[in-house]
Amino acid sequence: MKNMVVLSGTRSTGSLHLGNYFGAVENWVNLQNKYDCYFFIADWHSLTTGYEDTNNYVYNINEVVMDLYASGLDADKCNIFLQSKIQNHAELHLLLSMITPLSWLERCPTYKDQLAQLSEKDIRTYGFLGYPCLMASDILIYRADAVPVGEDQLPHLEVTREIARRFNHIYTEVFPEPKALLTKSKVLPGLDGRKMSKSYDNTILLKDKEDVLRTKIMSMITDPARIKKTDPGHPDVCSVFAFHKVFNENEVPSICDACKKGEIGCVACKKNLYQKVTEFMKPIHERRSEIESRPELIKKILEKGNENAKIKTDETMKLVRKAMKINWD
Amino acid sequence: MKNMVVLSGTRSTGSLHLGNYFGAVENWVNLQNKYDCYFFIADWHSLTTGYEDTNNYVYNINEVVMDLYASGLDADKCNIFLQSKIQNHAELHLLLSMITPLSWLERCPTYKDQLAQLSEKDIRTYGFLGYPCLMASDILIYRADAVPVGEDQLPHLEVTREIARRFNHIYTEVFPEPKALLTKSKVLPGLDGRKMSKSYDNTILLKDKEDVLRTKIMSMITDPARIKKTDPGHPDVCSVFAFHKVFNENEVPSICDACKKGEIGCVACKKNLYQKVTEFMKPIHERRSEIESRPELIKKILEKGNENAKIKTDETMKLVRKAMKINWD
Repeated sequence: MKNMVVLSGTRSTGSLHLGNYFGAVENWVNLQNKYDCYFFIADWHSLTTGYEDTNNYVYNINEVVMDLYASGLDADKCNIFLQSKIQNHAELHLLLSMITPLSWLERCPTYKDQLAQLSEKDIRTYGFLGYPCLMASDILIYRADAVPVGEDQLPHLEVTREIARRFNHIYTEVFPEPKALLTKSKVLPGLDGRKMSKSYDNTILLKDKEDVLRTKIMSMITDPARIKKTDPGHPDVCSVFAFHKVFNENEVPSICDACKKGEIGCVACKKNLYQKVTEFMKPIHERRSEIESRPELIKKILEKGNENAKIKTDETMKLVRKAMKINWD
Repeated sequence: MKNMVVLSGTRSTGSLHLGNYFGAVENWVNLQNKYDCYFFIADWHSLTTGYEDTNNYVYNINEVVMDLYASGLDADKCNIFLQSKIQNHAELHLLLSMITPLSWLERCPTYKDQLAQLSEKDIRTYGFLGYPCLMASDILIYRADAVPVGEDQLPHLEVTREIARRFNHIYTEVFPEPKALLTKSKVLPGLDGRKMSKSYDNTILLKDKEDVLRTKIMSMITDPARIKKTDPGHPDVCSVFAFHKVFNENEVPSICDACKKGEIGCVACKKNLYQKVTEFMKPIHERRSEIESRPELIKKILEKGNENAKIKTDETMKLVRKAMKINWD
């Protein structure tokens, strides 16, 4: 009964961190049991902002596959594939580019944001502007019914829906308009309280082992107003407390209380958290060790996924070419 | 010794006319004997301005193949292939899009011209802006040494050369910078004296048979100042005279003289021209009849060309992925 097609992807910009896990991957692990899922490593997308330094391109892909496996994705339940191995994505991207008004891309709210944020990079390129058009191809080529997205990705998904409508209107109906699967994901800040992000260097990686975990957790920023252990703390501004909410739900009320009363120190609070995070990470690390010791598994997972992705996208491209009346044969 | 790779293409927007022939195809027929030539039917390009009406898409492809064959292109001497059958073009287009500055495309002189000229069409699309980037992929993917182009295409070729330089600079040297093969082609105006163009409805098609040819030639616009046969004519503003220069070189001095003296009437002058054009068209029409009676030949020609194009572009894509360090395997 896995009739509904769900598609999602993650950029291969490095090893996955807990922000990626709680923002997307945890959800994927649930979805794989319910839907016909296509999860892809968006390696071409990583070029939109990273074309100048590709030294870790292949390494990053392997890292992401290992992290997805470690997180519990199961290649027997879902399709895990590599975008760049499916040339159909590039062809559909080209075809959709013909019908995509420039203004839709220029007005995409994240476009100008990113240009400003990444001003040190030379990304005023044709490909960077076309990012939502490539994303539309990635989604529509699986005729996906639903896409699990974070709120920040909603504008891109809206462009995808608009492109689908425009295609169906100009030619004939080929693409369903993919719905957003907005799932309430747990919010985990970075070690410094800002959003967890590779570019802020404030992440905990899924693969971080005990010693790294300990160092990172012990260095987390807590309530800056609290100098002595007996000062009353403000859990709401403390990133350690935000972590407890995710990893240690049961103790949240008592920790909150003790902190506010100055009855528990930050060091003890962090040691407690470290235990909980370590416990949480245990099965992930076990699976990570497993795949690290069997590197042929990476190849196996992707090859199976790529094969299924190829079959599905070949079908779609046939429909697309027929609808556009461009199928010379 | 056919070492130098030459690439050129023609859009599949309809049957070829004499403007296409003298502007490009005549030259191709010569080049096929000297170089390793790849001539392609740019059917994806035809979508940049024609995505809204694709009813004749496949018909137009077949027309172009038949006209190329009729003109003397020989599939044993050169590769004639269909752009949309070579997905590598789409992949390279995507990869090059990542490194192509938007400004190069926006400042391309033909871009704004075309937007203005085709203002009745809705072509402010991402794909239309990216036309020079797709053209760059078409050329670079054959590592072409030279491209026969008309002067109007020089700005596009310059973008191609810039993209090649940028790629070679960021990664490693893969692409030669293609040179322009500027050949002095014969200039043939349209029936009304403007540039011969399908959109002006002033063309003579390669496939136009005697009766159509006669009607078209007899309706050509001559010197508007000449009312009576005995009025002195002005050959320089007469499109019939321009045709004589191409099809009837020997008689040009005597016709020029007689016209200026009012000794030859326009009707007689056109009848003379009609004879010469018919003679010129004879071998073209013979070959056209041949391929019309053997439609399987179209398939054969393209299949051979597509196969060779695939082999050549597979090689290039390997080099590209290696240079970019993006070859996961």
